[in-house]
Amino acid sequence: MTTEIRGVVGELEAAMRAGDAKAVVALYTPDAVRYDLAPPLRHLGAEVHDVAALQAWFDGFGGSVGYEVHDLAVTAGEEVAFAYSLNKMYDPDGHFELWFRATYCLVRTGGRWLVAHEHTSTPFYMDGSFRAALDLQP
Amino acid sequence: MTTEIRGVVGELEAAMRAGDAKAVVALYTPDAVRYDLAPPLRHLGAEVHDVAALQAWFDGFGGSVGYEVHDLAVTAGEEVAFAYSLNKMYDPDGHFELWFRATYCLVRTGGRWLVAHEHTSTPFYMDGSFRAALDLQP
Repeated sequence: MTTEIRGVVGELEAAMRAGDAKAVVALYTPDAVRYDLAPPLRHLGAEVHDVAALQAWFDGFGGSVGYEVHDLAVTAGEEVAFAYSLNKMYDPDGHFELWFRATYCLVRTGGRWLVAHEHTSTPFYMDGSFRAALDLQP
Repeated sequence: MTTEIRGVVGELEAAMRAGDAKAVVALYTPDAVRYDLAPPLRHLGAEVHDVAALQAWFDGFGGSVGYEVHDLAVTAGEEVAFAYSLNKMYDPDGHFELWFRATYCLVRTGGRWLVAHEHTSTPFYMDGSFRAALDLQP
């Protein structure tokens, strides 16, 4: 199972890099709930599957974005699994680079694994500035 | 299984409210990995089980902190499970209130469920300010 989970996360990584919004959303269950880097607090199923919105986001980066999954750890049962990693997202032109945390929760449905819940984030500085901690590295 | 998972998250919520650091850390596997609200990017097993550090954090709030788990959704297999919620943390004196996202990834080990991975976060504003989004509500 672990190999299959790594395959799904690898497909997600490849689809992000390719700026292929349709391929990205195909990896989520219809009622998936995503906690994203940006507000709001959560995105429910229909928003997760909004191909046009994701494509517009890719277009904002000129069509695609640098995206790497590092230190992926996987725990898999027969039907339920989770995985977590530290990911790097960057502008291919070098204007920004961001390390963030990712958690993927998956279910096996219809013979294949899909992401039912995803949580990506950066921490924030509790020093009174309340800035997002965008300068951290593993 | 779902009932058992809800029980563990309920124990965690109660231990946070009580400011009982020892009870909190007892709910995590020895090698649990936590992605917290504050830096660094991740806390590994030994840090997760640092009772003194957590107790000091509680002491900073006068011994305990308001802590509520809302909208908990659970998906459980035989040995692996995940759950996610929107949590509210607040100073009992009313100085602050913060809504954040929580994801709990659990494994059944030695007949009981423990948290092997936890991810809590707020999103951040991608408006150029890069402020943590601490003012969101469900």
